Amino acid sequence: MEDTLDALRSLMASHSPKLDALVVPSEDYHQSEYVSARDKRRQFVSGFTGSAGLALITMKEALLWTDGRYFLQAAKELSDKWKLMRIGEDPAVDVWMADNLPKEAAIGVDPWCVSVDTAQRWERAFAKKRQKLVETIKDLVDEVWKNRPPLEINPVIIHPLEFAGCSVMDKLNDLREKLIQEKARGIIITALDEVAWLYNIRGSDISYCPVVNAFAIVTSNSAFFYVDRRKVSSEINSYMEENGIEVREYAAVSSDVTLLASNKLNGTHVELKNDMEINPSEIEITRNGAEETKENTFDLIWADPGSCCYALYSKLDTDKVLLQPSPLALAKAIKNPVELEGLKNAHIRDGAAVVQYLVWLDNQMQEIYGASGYFLEGLGANKKKHSESRKLTEVTASDKLESFRASKENFRGLSFPTISSVGPNAAIIHYSPHAETCAEFDPDKIYLFDSGAQYVDGTTDITRTVHFGKPSEHEKASYTAVLKGHIDLGNARFPNGTNGQALDILARVPLWKDGLDYRHGTGHGIGSYLNVHEGPHMISFRPQARNVPLQASMTVTDEPGYYEDGNFGIRLENVLIIKKADTKFNFGDKGYLSFEHITWAPYQRKLIDLSLLTSEEIDWLNSYHLKCRDILAPFLTESEKAWLNKATEPVSV
Amino acid sequence: MEDTLDALRSLMASHSPKLDALVVPSEDYHQSEYVSARDKRRQFVSGFTGSAGLALITMKEALLWTDGRYFLQAAKELSDKWKLMRIGEDPAVDVWMADNLPKEAAIGVDPWCVSVDTAQRWERAFAKKRQKLVETIKDLVDEVWKNRPPLEINPVIIHPLEFAGCSVMDKLNDLREKLIQEKARGIIITALDEVAWLYNIRGSDISYCPVVNAFAIVTSNSAFFYVDRRKVSSEINSYMEENGIEVREYAAVSSDVTLLASNKLNGTHVELKNDMEINPSEIEITRNGAEETKENTFDLIWADPGSCCYALYSKLDTDKVLLQPSPLALAKAIKNPVELEGLKNAHIRDGAAVVQYLVWLDNQMQEIYGASGYFLEGLGANKKKHSESRKLTEVTASDKLESFRASKENFRGLSFPTISSVGPNAAIIHYSPHAETCAEFDPDKIYLFDSGAQYVDGTTDITRTVHFGKPSEHEKASYTAVLKGHIDLGNARFPNGTNGQALDILARVPLWKDGLDYRHGTGHGIGSYLNVHEGPHMISFRPQARNVPLQASMTVTDEPGYYEDGNFGIRLENVLIIKKADTKFNFGDKGYLSFEHITWAPYQRKLIDLSLLTSEEIDWLNSYHLKCRDILAPFLTESEKAWLNKATEPVSV
Repeated sequence: MEDTLDALRSLMASHSPKLDALVVPSEDYHQSEYVSARDKRRQFVSGFTGSAGLALITMKEALLWTDGRYFLQAAKELSDKWKLMRIGEDPAVDVWMADNLPKEAAIGVDPWCVSVDTAQRWERAFAKKRQKLVETIKDLVDEVWKNRPPLEINPVIIHPLEFAGCSVMDKLNDLREKLIQEKARGIIITALDEVAWLYNIRGSDISYCPVVNAFAIVTSNSAFFYVDRRKVSSEINSYMEENGIEVREYAAVSSDVTLLASNKLNGTHVELKNDMEINPSEIEITRNGAEETKENTFDLIWADPGSCCYALYSKLDTDKVLLQPSPLALAKAIKNPVELEGLKNAHIRDGAAVVQYLVWLDNQMQEIYGASGYFLEGLGANKKKHSESRKLTEVTASDKLESFRASKENFRGLSFPTISSVGPNAAIIHYSPHAETCAEFDPDKIYLFDSGAQYVDGTTDITRTVHFGKPSEHEKASYTAVLKGHIDLGNARFPNGTNGQALDILARVPLWKDGLDYRHGTGHGIGSYLNVHEGPHMISFRPQARNVPLQASMTVTDEPGYYEDGNFGIRLENVLIIKKADTKFNFGDKGYLSFEHITWAPYQRKLIDLSLLTSEEIDWLNSYHLKCRDILAPFLTESEKAWLNKATEPVSV
Repeated sequence: MEDTLDALRSLMASHSPKLDALVVPSEDYHQSEYVSARDKRRQFVSGFTGSAGLALITMKEALLWTDGRYFLQAAKELSDKWKLMRIGEDPAVDVWMADNLPKEAAIGVDPWCVSVDTAQRWERAFAKKRQKLVETIKDLVDEVWKNRPPLEINPVIIHPLEFAGCSVMDKLNDLREKLIQEKARGIIITALDEVAWLYNIRGSDISYCPVVNAFAIVTSNSAFFYVDRRKVSSEINSYMEENGIEVREYAAVSSDVTLLASNKLNGTHVELKNDMEINPSEIEITRNGAEETKENTFDLIWADPGSCCYALYSKLDTDKVLLQPSPLALAKAIKNPVELEGLKNAHIRDGAAVVQYLVWLDNQMQEIYGASGYFLEGLGANKKKHSESRKLTEVTASDKLESFRASKENFRGLSFPTISSVGPNAAIIHYSPHAETCAEFDPDKIYLFDSGAQYVDGTTDITRTVHFGKPSEHEKASYTAVLKGHIDLGNARFPNGTNGQALDILARVPLWKDGLDYRHGTGHGIGSYLNVHEGPHMISFRPQARNVPLQASMTVTDEPGYYEDGNFGIRLENVLIIKKADTKFNFGDKGYLSFEHITWAPYQRKLIDLSLLTSEEIDWLNSYHLKCRDILAPFLTESEKAWLNKATEPVSV
């Protein structure tokens, strides 16, 4: 690490202008949450392996900001050259830079790795001391990164209509209608999952995310796909041509954005469907009933300030940019009936794999460790001796879980690194075990696993927390509070227009009663054979959760937790689909929404203090458990079914 | 009404510049919610009597905006010359003006009756069509208002320390510390309750609000009180002098703000307490650890953009205004121990009056109307005949309620017009009955009363909904859903930093389950012998509810409801005090808060469907009811106690 920091500081000193600080974000050129090995610049410089974080290197200091999910992990992984900055507790990075860097400081960043939103927020903070954000010509980290993983050439694959549920032409038509509505000449699409969704393609450029490293530009009569051409087979070339999409080299996006800005980007003309055969210059759209002049009509370029990098934005005329969220984010979030059906089916197969894993774990824990097992509450004092080769670790167990999933139809890989965590590791919210250093199972400790898979018909994400010995009363009370939050949120009904910030509290109230809480959001959208985390909606206390109301046919996770540093962690997570609620009344004619669970795996009876549940919560639990039996039975052996029947026995107070 | 509109339009036409529209806000020069009869300009021009609303008069149209509490009432009160604009459903007033008024339109407003926030929001909306906000020289409504109520000369009264709990000198010292922190030379205090709170005075210039029509200015070494001198006795003059406060004429505030802006406002020099004996120019305060220059130190004038009128703001140098919420709003909201004690005592006496009223009503309903009464569920089919003179109406009943309150110690008047509403009138959220037109009681209809009083030791506000015959199943289910929301919000515990927008949903979730909701916020702060509605915090879905976290020693109401137009309305309201919660744990070391009910009156057993309550809710209800018995007993007669014992019998499912 020391060599890297020294090498970077030397480049900062020789940079023109000389840099007082260098920001190294986690993101790639597309502002992705998960990035390819080659793009893990922040991990390379800091040693911190979490998915979210930002490194700042000054001539004297090195600081890393990350959020509550990673406080423990970052503290472990960072060397003493680094200072951990806790988001929400320590000053935010822009405040810190403005306050601690000198007047007129030059702060460098690779403009491809920072979004417009972020760069502008920093610039606002810098104004008061006339500090400036400097776009480095080259990425300084790439310059010092010896043994940087090579570029991989992974083929682009078609995502067939039977899974996508909507044709590229229909998606392009919808998008072009939105361009007309907003009087935009074109849109720059930078988020990888939006490119994949729009063109109905998938790839394997980033682990866990079946996306292609690519940009897209769409105008009223042309569409472009910027990608390393070596990834494009002749079949894909034809497919793109059929859909009126021109394939160009990845790097060409830069000069094409410049052309787009000056209205000189010419592509294959697309034959528009009949009702789109209109000359945009003849249309006058009235917004909010206001008169509007024709001047400035259709010269806007749409860019999403959250995902468009500053490098591309800089090529646009500031007055002619429509900086607002990409319409594809919402279009992608609202699943079509084929996607919903696929997601439900994928979650059933996934649930079967999870149950098979629990049955297997239960047996292993009893055989290897003499644990009382999933059902009984016995102390593990009489731990059996066992040979090193039979040892069950966080990694050997999660490998087994993966093998159960891999045996299922349509499996394509995991959707994120499995969190398989014993005891204190479970308190590390985004813990990721490594074979050499990971913990061994212990019948006296809680085990939390948060995992998911990519199936061609849907992406999954589930968390369960179990104990194979005798849980403490405190662990039971905590598990029960988390379960209550999980059930109560899932049981909510709410009017259209309600956002995920309003609902977030429902999962926390049972924890707050005991003075407990968790430092992460409560739910995220999930893709259809796409990213496991997707927006634009979320259930969270974060301000962004206010931006987009929850809507029917969206997916969202329901995952409250409780974490006690150095002791244990609890989280329960299901994927929910938002649907119209059949309420008795419809006050205000708004229409009411509710959730449907599509994840199937039991909650451990032993960890539940039934006396703390309301009768509504108990009814829900019994009903959910009976559905688990019915839905999963076709995928289980007789002995697995017997185990599941026992695990899902109805309970009462 | 026609004459008034015509007269106004004539003045608009002859105004220089000619006005295309005139805005007539509800507020007085202090942006008060309740205003004196003389200041009810919007009511005078429109005929709409509600407390909140805004009139807009163009050459052709007359529009009135109001919020969900008043939709029904405004629809009834407005003549066909007026168009009702529903806030939240129709375009907002600024959007409407920008969209519907011509380019470069001149829109007039009395700059004393509009806040800086509001005026600036309008000006932003006006920019795109180069429309302009014109400050009318005189108030055009005053010009056409014949028989305008005269100015009343009501004496200023001292609010003694035994009730205020904090001396004027201590309040001024705290305020001056805040001025130093913010590098402000002085503050303009415009909100009437802030002036009253700061100087420990009360008055009777506005019905229901014991405030004095006055401004204040406070600098580091002087304090001013702008008031009609005829209201100031020699005792008050001495009191002001003792506290270093200079009394000036009300109208002098205008020229004094100009002097303050140019640092020429000189008053009696105040002797500062020892630890304040500092030369402000020597202090350098570091904010967020940032270096700051000494330039521009202590030349800011603090004005609250929500309560300061545009007329006074216009006299300040834009670069030298500190436009942020007044520190007095929060200081006033956090009650001191004396105020808390007073509030609790006032609420006990008030609860006794409410119980006496219920007992009296129960007897009246049985005697006059042959109702089955508070406890039994009988149809009122056998309504007794009664003489016109014995008729019980919304007004005769509320007069009786007032008389029960008036018999209590420290009573000074009502805190707002009593909402006494039978059947369909209860669906008019802020219904105000008039003797000539109000409804008669009916044993087959719900009765809702929302009322409160001013006691010298505290202000009260309580709502109960009752039925003296046989409520329908739908009324019971609705009452129970409202009660569940009321209880669940009150039972919440939450970490410090939580705001009232986050908590609002807790009172709605039980209603949303059935597709029910209510179009108003859930809670407001309440004064200590001051305004019944006070901020800066609130519990509401409104964005403002995010601005201020709830804090220990604040008061807040808990008042969900459900209203069915033309049919019935239900609301339940208690005042709560926020206090430290004794949670088992303290995750994140934030400290947790909870609520304490200080309102005492029973909920009607007959209207509760017990099968819908959780055991936690039933436990709360029983415990609250038993406390009602104990706390109110000393204020009740034997027969009233017997009635209350019956009304508060413990229940179980």
